[in-house]
Amino acid sequence: MKMSDLIGDRYKEKPADCTIESHALMVRGGYIKQVGTGVYSLFTPARRSTRKIEQIIREEMDAIDGQEVLFPVALPADLWKESGRYESVGKELLRFRDRMGADMVLGMTHEEAAVHLVRDLAKSYVRYPFMIYQIQTKFRDEPRARGGLIRVREFTMKDAYSFHTSQESLEKYYYRCHRAYERIFARCGAKRFVSVLSDSGMMGGSISHEFMLLSPIGEDTIVTCASCDYRANMEAAECITDNTGLEAVDDLKLVHTPEMKTIEEVAEFLHADIKHTCKAVVYQKNEDDSYVLVFLRGDHEVNETKLRNYVGAEIHAAKIEAESGIVAGFIGLKDLKCPKGSVIVIDRSLKGIGSLICGANQADYHYTGFNIARDYGTVEYADISKANIGGICPKCGRPTLDVSSGIEIGNIFQLGTKYSKAMNMQYIDQNAELHYPIMGCYGIGVGRLLASICEESHDEYGPVWPITIAPWEVQICCLRADQEEISNIGNSLYKELENAGVETVIDDRPISAGIMFSEADLLGLPIRVTVSPRNCKEGVVEVSSRNKTYSEKVPVSEAKATVIALREKMYQELNAAAPERI
Amino acid sequence: MKMSDLIGDRYKEKPADCTIESHALMVRGGYIKQVGTGVYSLFTPARRSTRKIEQIIREEMDAIDGQEVLFPVALPADLWKESGRYESVGKELLRFRDRMGADMVLGMTHEEAAVHLVRDLAKSYVRYPFMIYQIQTKFRDEPRARGGLIRVREFTMKDAYSFHTSQESLEKYYYRCHRAYERIFARCGAKRFVSVLSDSGMMGGSISHEFMLLSPIGEDTIVTCASCDYRANMEAAECITDNTGLEAVDDLKLVHTPEMKTIEEVAEFLHADIKHTCKAVVYQKNEDDSYVLVFLRGDHEVNETKLRNYVGAEIHAAKIEAESGIVAGFIGLKDLKCPKGSVIVIDRSLKGIGSLICGANQADYHYTGFNIARDYGTVEYADISKANIGGICPKCGRPTLDVSSGIEIGNIFQLGTKYSKAMNMQYIDQNAELHYPIMGCYGIGVGRLLASICEESHDEYGPVWPITIAPWEVQICCLRADQEEISNIGNSLYKELENAGVETVIDDRPISAGIMFSEADLLGLPIRVTVSPRNCKEGVVEVSSRNKTYSEKVPVSEAKATVIALREKMYQELNAAAPERI
Repeated sequence: MKMSDLIGDRYKEKPADCTIESHALMVRGGYIKQVGTGVYSLFTPARRSTRKIEQIIREEMDAIDGQEVLFPVALPADLWKESGRYESVGKELLRFRDRMGADMVLGMTHEEAAVHLVRDLAKSYVRYPFMIYQIQTKFRDEPRARGGLIRVREFTMKDAYSFHTSQESLEKYYYRCHRAYERIFARCGAKRFVSVLSDSGMMGGSISHEFMLLSPIGEDTIVTCASCDYRANMEAAECITDNTGLEAVDDLKLVHTPEMKTIEEVAEFLHADIKHTCKAVVYQKNEDDSYVLVFLRGDHEVNETKLRNYVGAEIHAAKIEAESGIVAGFIGLKDLKCPKGSVIVIDRSLKGIGSLICGANQADYHYTGFNIARDYGTVEYADISKANIGGICPKCGRPTLDVSSGIEIGNIFQLGTKYSKAMNMQYIDQNAELHYPIMGCYGIGVGRLLASICEESHDEYGPVWPITIAPWEVQICCLRADQEEISNIGNSLYKELENAGVETVIDDRPISAGIMFSEADLLGLPIRVTVSPRNCKEGVVEVSSRNKTYSEKVPVSEAKATVIALREKMYQELNAAAPERI
Repeated sequence: MKMSDLIGDRYKEKPADCTIESHALMVRGGYIKQVGTGVYSLFTPARRSTRKIEQIIREEMDAIDGQEVLFPVALPADLWKESGRYESVGKELLRFRDRMGADMVLGMTHEEAAVHLVRDLAKSYVRYPFMIYQIQTKFRDEPRARGGLIRVREFTMKDAYSFHTSQESLEKYYYRCHRAYERIFARCGAKRFVSVLSDSGMMGGSISHEFMLLSPIGEDTIVTCASCDYRANMEAAECITDNTGLEAVDDLKLVHTPEMKTIEEVAEFLHADIKHTCKAVVYQKNEDDSYVLVFLRGDHEVNETKLRNYVGAEIHAAKIEAESGIVAGFIGLKDLKCPKGSVIVIDRSLKGIGSLICGANQADYHYTGFNIARDYGTVEYADISKANIGGICPKCGRPTLDVSSGIEIGNIFQLGTKYSKAMNMQYIDQNAELHYPIMGCYGIGVGRLLASICEESHDEYGPVWPITIAPWEVQICCLRADQEEISNIGNSLYKELENAGVETVIDDRPISAGIMFSEADLLGLPIRVTVSPRNCKEGVVEVSSRNKTYSEKVPVSEAKATVIALREKMYQELNAAAPERI
């Protein structure tokens, strides 16, 4: 490829609407162009990189016995009605009618299509386990598209579906797929990625993991333990609270707390440790606006995902109506008045505290010395709080939890029989009995992975692409290509490299060295060869790496061999970073 | 791949809903499964084949300096409003609203997206010409989905867009792309394909060609000349009528033709040559139901595409209202009464006939001796008739036209400036003047090409895949793999071939030879190796080709080399069938 032919402009100014570095670089570098909200076109460099990512994914999916198929983007709504998700999934599922008036959806995930494809086939247990996957466009009507390809509405995704006759078989395969994912991310050059336990959300099923690329721009919050290998998405992280030393019981007293509506104000006013306070947070169910009242220790916060799962319904922050009887700011368990049908959730962060300060359900009054068992009754405690820094690890028990941010670059789910049951897929076992197969599903967003790696691997001048996913491998910069010798050296090296199968770009435009190098930095190819008048006089060219770990002047005659050796080394390093296949 | 692992069933019974051979074979062979009307999932064999077709297309597009990009499937309607097609294209364009209430469409072709991607870039003439292409899912809300992958609603398409600063540059590139298409189809193993002049339809522009695979099941009608290389789609074919010998003029007479409503009945009743008759066919414009009356020679038929282009509006067969004044069955040019705003079109098949029989615009009466110039006036003749077998070739002038059927497997259009003008894409020429670039566009449907080749290349037992697009290259059939020797020979050959990069399937299931061969025929791999007890005794295996041109028993030790040589020969034959690149 000649730079003079490459479609797409590279420029210096940071676009105003880009808050994320990788987004700005991919716009400035001529990788992507926005077409509408969360909808992008890819220029050739981005398309070449996504194809390489797709190929790495394909190789690793094939290596764990995956069979590539293709499902439609536009699906009849009937399939989603069968699974029940046509009703249960929100507006992110794009629904439309075709010209015949039939309900259809744009696939945002393909469990239904996967079951549809195989449900008439795998009638006997001997056909199990198996896995099918596709790499295909998906559409998810995201309300919060952002960050270039990080969060979009239309995207290319690899989604895989495995089918099993036992939980054991699923878990074994799940682990194999986990390893395949580690290989994929490592081969693509991602460095700081971890897998974390996650919440299964609308997918159903029990155990699931997300692969997170640790990054300050990540929208996901990850809980990790400094003492052991515990890792979870905040949404799924268990919160253990140590209330040792807080057991002392006191007398119940009504105290005047004028206009003190936050628990911090009350604690300060009463000179009390916030650990002795019980706060209330109120939500409403989306379906009927009935109230959900959550009580938790004053220094804790509600994990809304856990709360949602606990009450089994979508919720939103409450707008408390006066006639409800709920006294906002002074809500407590004792003498609580709330409409019939309200749900009261008591977080286990309150368990074991002998004496609590809590609202008295009348304006400007709190109780002190409130004891749940004595003053309220026996309760079922739920785990609704967010885990926090320094919190207790659910795995090793040490108070060494840490909280960081990550971008979700992949996920794996143990789905169970949710879809096979709903869509009536059955097989016959050794004893001629019918069963529903157990499923797993496994996703990777291709464009997001590209953008995430750009986010992890860039400098102020542009992306520093790992060689495995770089649009091309080598860039030849010919400074002063109007000089015949420069042009000859550059172009014959270009041809030699291309003939040797090295993906090469040559820039022989009559532009300044500054602009040429800036554009090369924005293209971010891992190896650069600079042919310049000064080098030329010495009979050398300069071979360097985009990540600045290598720079060498080599005789023109050795340039090709040097480039090829460097390239080989780069591939080896990335492949060596990937764990063995299992 | 082991046949025992391959997902998808192969079976004997022809599915009831398949009227086309290739459709039945692709269902029976475990290639495709219908998900909804005109919407299919692809099993692994079909997905592997479409990926190979995509790669061949990619190589040929890259070879003519194409740059691969990716446009979105879901596009903001604004782009289509800019080009005017949001209004002008019918229901085949799927329109929907997203969650924000914004109008969107599913891309059925991407001229708008292509202009959007590059319109800010190619500001200077020096950047031209260039071509961008994508391979992507498209959705066209077809009312008549049929024939498996032949005519679907969702499909994978390669669509390419070229941009030029002169018509000359466009034509040169158009010709290069024409050649690339010939190479693609030849490399994919299509045999009886031709390119024909076509109607540009909703794409706009002037010259366009379709590539047709000649086939009795084709929905397109193609006009070819036996004397020269003239070829056109019936929709676009010029019709030349020779009226030599029909010049004699007669007196105008009103004759009673009771209840004779067809022109054939009238001609017979009056003992007249049908060439002396003038018939009328009546249409209505979709937009306002105003009438379009077409007059043509009695033995000709209306080419509705040409008529549509001539009147510049969508039309449908008329429902003639009594109050219109039009006397159905007796319509003629003389004394014609029809509502104001009606369009009268006189086909040039009537030109030069001195004396015509035509309707008298009153029930049960015709005129004889009607002479257009004398009895009606000076008229503008239009070319509205269908070309017919034995008709006159517009290119060489001989009466040697033939009519056949074809499946459209690709098309190329000279678009002109329709889109660049509508979407305001401009460049500056050498003289600092602004111009709209001239565009070409070029499409190939991947799935349809696969199905068409299956239609062309199959026998009663299954597809006979060309090696370039076969799901795998070689199938090893192990008869009686329960015998250790058989299993050893089969499996070690399988490993040897796989290690040599030969894509191989091994069937070592405990099934009868009959079923094993039937399934192998349905998978249609070009090379087969049969390992059987009888062969085994002789120390040989049987290597044969699916197309039955080759069958040889070779010693086990030579099997690998024989297979590799045969494979090489098959690739060479297909590559040799492709014309040189230009």
